[in-house]
This record gives sequence, structure tokens and C-alpha cells, in this order.
Amino acid sequence: MSDLIEELLAGKHRALARVISKIEDRSPGYRELVSQLHEHTGNATVVGITGSPGAGKSTLVDKMAETYRERGETVGVIAIDPSSPFSGGAVLGDRIRMASNVGDMDVFFRSMSARGTLGGLSTATTDAVKALDAFGKDRIIIETVGAGQNEVDIVGTADTVAVLVPPSSGDDVQMLKAGILEIGDVFVVNKADLDGADRTVQELKEMVHMRDASPLAGTAGHHGVETDAVGEEDEDETDDGDDDTWTPPIVETVAKTGEGVEPFLDTLADHRAWLETSGELTEQRRDRYEEEIRRLLREGAGELIREEIERQGGLDRYVDTIVAKETDPYAVTEELLAPLRESVRE
Amino acid sequence: MSDLIEELLAGKHRALARVISKIEDRSPGYRELVSQLHEHTGNATVVGITGSPGAGKSTLVDKMAETYRERGETVGVIAIDPSSPFSGGAVLGDRIRMASNVGDMDVFFRSMSARGTLGGLSTATTDAVKALDAFGKDRIIIETVGAGQNEVDIVGTADTVAVLVPPSSGDDVQMLKAGILEIGDVFVVNKADLDGADRTVQELKEMVHMRDASPLAGTAGHHGVETDAVGEEDEDETDDGDDDTWTPPIVETVAKTGEGVEPFLDTLADHRAWLETSGELTEQRRDRYEEEIRRLLREGAGELIREEIERQGGLDRYVDTIVAKETDPYAVTEELLAPLRESVRE
Repeated sequence: MSDLIEELLAGKHRALARVISKIEDRSPGYRELVSQLHEHTGNATVVGITGSPGAGKSTLVDKMAETYRERGETVGVIAIDPSSPFSGGAVLGDRIRMASNVGDMDVFFRSMSARGTLGGLSTATTDAVKALDAFGKDRIIIETVGAGQNEVDIVGTADTVAVLVPPSSGDDVQMLKAGILEIGDVFVVNKADLDGADRTVQELKEMVHMRDASPLAGTAGHHGVETDAVGEEDEDETDDGDDDTWTPPIVETVAKTGEGVEPFLDTLADHRAWLETSGELTEQRRDRYEEEIRRLLREGAGELIREEIERQGGLDRYVDTIVAKETDPYAVTEELLAPLRESVRE
Repeated sequence: MSDLIEELLAGKHRALARVISKIEDRSPGYRELVSQLHEHTGNATVVGITGSPGAGKSTLVDKMAETYRERGETVGVIAIDPSSPFSGGAVLGDRIRMASNVGDMDVFFRSMSARGTLGGLSTATTDAVKALDAFGKDRIIIETVGAGQNEVDIVGTADTVAVLVPPSSGDDVQMLKAGILEIGDVFVVNKADLDGADRTVQELKEMVHMRDASPLAGTAGHHGVETDAVGEEDEDETDDGDDDTWTPPIVETVAKTGEGVEPFLDTLADHRAWLETSGELTEQRRDRYEEEIRRLLREGAGELIREEIERQGGLDRYVDTIVAKETDPYAVTEELLAPLRESVRE
């Protein structure tokens, strides 16, 4: 085992930070580091927090961390910086400012962005979660603004996903339907002291009810992010209300004052207990590993292709023939992929 | 040549729509169709329009289309539906409503979303642009909300990129810095009749000036989206102000009334003329083809991997060993990639 991993397992925060940096930078040897982490994982609970900008995610996450700490548990937070060209810097800036409220080394806070991460953000997040888990953090929180499919995929790798909804007009709740409803295991109406909170709770209840009644509803919350969710339709779905199904609860919080945070954490614990007793946790872990292998294979194949192009001295001569209209990009691709195609079909 | 392509080249809008559907669905044989289009491309000018939600993109695009039509030119519009889980449906809905204002078959309008497109949205957009180009559309407009890196990449495949900025506080213009400034060839302060427009114009001018003064500034507008932009730093950059450089102009429009749209289109034409005389167009086309090959290679390799996994009867036995902690996802990936690795290194 590498010294760095030994130090991480011994509880050195500095080693943890260095491992995560190596993961982000894809430093030489980072794969071996992550490989070594694997056997030490599986003890943390991983919660994903998502919701539209302004829903109060950062504040809630800070309060969650604080409350877990008061209960004597250790916490790791990974905040995904959306890197949107329109809102990039500011979000992260706010977050750092807020994070300083939790002035406690046992809350390990790290933000990650597509910009700061070589390779895929999903892979970096998955690997960073492994590092926090192997380190011995009891609770890991992945926070994303949920601005795109990529971020929904990332937050979907958590065991439990909580979707934050601000109190608002019916229109906004309708918009949630477009993809976020499917991944929520728990819905949180934050800023519950504001007008409209009751109505938002009511609307969410109706939506959750409709989701459960729909023939496509699975037995667990976030099937939306799985690759082959369709294949699960043949599972037993007739016994609504028993241990096999989870109906997403709707909880109310006022993150700023901390109101409702304790009951929210209890609801997260309920979901975790359900995951365990229903056997869903085992199933979910298997699905995640499978998805991880597929993702790593895609990335690995991409690297092989970059190497091959470099070995051939770049693509200039192919571009020449395309510009001359002697061939076209699809035909060139077919030609370049031919040796790979043969090797997998042997 | 296939009958469908023959019909498309003969100017049948129905054939054009069917080809684009096949591109979106990746129907069997779609690659051959796109291959056949290639030699008929290269005559259209492609403009990308991006900007934050509410900047007035749809209205401006409709007015652009209308004005081009009045000039006797044909137009194709591809609107990228952001598919954000938080704003998905509504954006597209509005767009369809607005599109009906341009009740003219020579404005071919098509929206695309990650959800409705099998495979990559970048590839689908690039291929749909080829179909419109080969069909004979004079002007092609790609419209995106610019919500994420993926969309910035897509709009960046246009010859000329216009970034819409609503009149607003200094804060918002500051946020543009995070990635959108780099890709703009033209900046448009839309809703120029509102308070704050003059200030926004002034701020944009300062930012453009700073960009040009920065040592990282390239000779063309949207280097930010190229894969190896760093390698271009050694180009000649000392002759500021001559034909080799393009300073993004800032134009003002009121899309709702059509005010400023004519001068905006003239500015787009100026950029196009500069692309041609400076030799940048040729360079840019080569870069795009290279990027397209790389993207198609990545996608092709991904398909090969999916086939290989299927051939092996799925990943279950690998997941078993990972769950048992006998191995880990990285080690499994290495094992599965080994034959590919050998084939490219032969």
C-alpha cells in the first residue's frame, strides 16, 4: 500500500486532501490509489442534495453538517460547482464564504468543477466519495445545483437523494416534473417560513402520489439515473405500501435558523433503513458499480484513441482529405476504428 | 445515393425533416446518409446565438429569420432545448409558440434536446447543420440557452457566435466572464430600450478591451471551445488592429420591435467577411473537422464497448468480484481494455 493511502487510513486530513487533488488532476498513479481505497469503503452513508439555484442548498448542507457533528458523527461534503458560463464563479464564491461558518476540521469540505477536474466530473466525484468513505467519514454529502443532466447523474450516485424546493407558485413545481421528480427520495420545502410553503408541500404531495400511481413507477426513488431502469418494470409492484416500496416524504425546513433540520436528518435515516431492509441498497450498489465500470471503460477507450491519434502524428492528413471532399468525417472514423473493432470481435 | 438524400438535395422539406429525424434517432444507415451529405456542404453561413435565459434569444432569432427572408435568403434554425431538470419543458413550449410567428416554410425550424436525441447532442447538431447546408439553406442559426459547457461547445461549432446580454447591473456582466466572453464574436445588448442598456454596453466594451489586451487572447473569437487552444499561443499576435485580428463589436437591439436587427445582421456579415479574408475560416473549418473526428471516435469506441459487454453477457460476474472486494472497478476496467490496448499498440 502507498504511504499516502496509509496516512489517509490513519485519519490524516492532509493525506485525504492530497488524494482528492490527485483524483482531480488525474496525477500519474491515481488509479492505483483509488484501487487501494476500494476495500476500505462501504461504511459511510452518502446523501445527495440538489435543487434550483436559490433553494438554499448551501445553508441547509452547512446546518446538516453542524447537526451531524453535534451527534458525534464525522462529515465530508463535496460541492459540485456548476461551471455554467453564466453563473460559474459566483456560486462557488458564495459557497466558500458560507463554508467558513462550519469551522471544524471534521467537516471536510471540497468543491469540484468540470473546469478544475481533468476527465469526467462523475468519475472524480465517485472517487472522492471513496476517499472520504475509506478515510472513515460517517456522513458524505454531495451537493449540486442540478443545472444539467450531468449533475443529476452525479447526485444520483448517492444512496439517498434529497431535492430542495423553494416555496413558490405552482408553475415552478410543474417544471420539476421535467426530470428531478424521478430522482428524489425525499423532498424538502426549504424556507418553509415564507408564503406559499403550504401550497408547495401540497403540490409536491400530489405529484409524488401521481408518480407512485403511474405504471412506470419503480420500487425505489431515483431510477431515472440508472441505465437500464426499463428492465425493472417486471418487478413486483402490486403490494403498495409494504416494505418493498418507498414513498418520498415531504419535509419542511428553515435552513437559516436550523428549524426542521433534525427531523430532516431522521427522514434521511429512515430512507437508509428502508434501503437496507428492502434489499434495495445491495441492488443499488451493484447498479452503481456496473455504471462505474461502463464509465471508466468509456473514458479509458477515449484515452486509447487520443494516444493512437498522437502516435499517427495527428489528424491533419485526414482533415486534408475531408476538406478536399474525397472523404468525410464518418468514413474517416470508420477507418480509424477498424482495428479496435476487429480486436473486440476476435 | 439514397432516394432520401436525392429528395433532400432537390429541395423537399419533408426529406430534410426525415433526415434530421434519422440523425436524432440514429436510425440504421444514418451514418451513410450523413456521409453522402458532406460533399454538398460548405455554402451556408452558420451563426450561433447564446445568452442567459430571458435575454430574448427566441425573439431575436425569429426577427433574424424574418429579415433574412425579406432579403430573399433561406433560413434553417436549430434550437437546443437545454433539458435542464429545472427548466426543461417550458423553454421548448415557449419556443414553439413563438416559432409560429414565422409562418414560412423557408424558415425550417427544429428543436433538439439531449432527451430526444440518442447519442451525443453535439454530433446530432453538427449533422443536422450538414443536412440544412446540403439542402441549400443560406443561413443556419443555432440557438442555445448556454446553460452548460456542453451547450457552449455546441454553439461554438458555428462560424460566428453572438452572445446576447440583457441590460442589467454590473454583477451580471461580471458573471459572463466565467466562460462566455471567450466565445463571443459579437455581443448583443438586447432590450436596449430598457434602463441600464448604456451601462451594459460600456461594461462589455471594457471587457472586450481587456480580453484583447490579455496575453492569452487569440486571433479569433471563440478559441475557448477548441481542444488544443493552448498550442495556438505561438501564433502572431503582435499586429493588433490589422486584418489578422477581430475585435468583437457590441450592438444594440430591441428584438421585440425589430429595432437594430438589420445592423446586427450586417455585423454578422462583417465577421464572416473577416473570417474569409483573414484565412481564419479555413483554419476554423479544419479545427472543426478534427474535433468532429475525435468526437465520432469517442462515440464509436463507446459503442464498441457496449457491444463487447453484451457479447460477454453483461457485467454481473465482474460486479460480483467487486462487491466481494476481490477486485475494484479500476482493475476490472484495465482487464477489459487490455485487448483494445494491444490492438492500437501493434
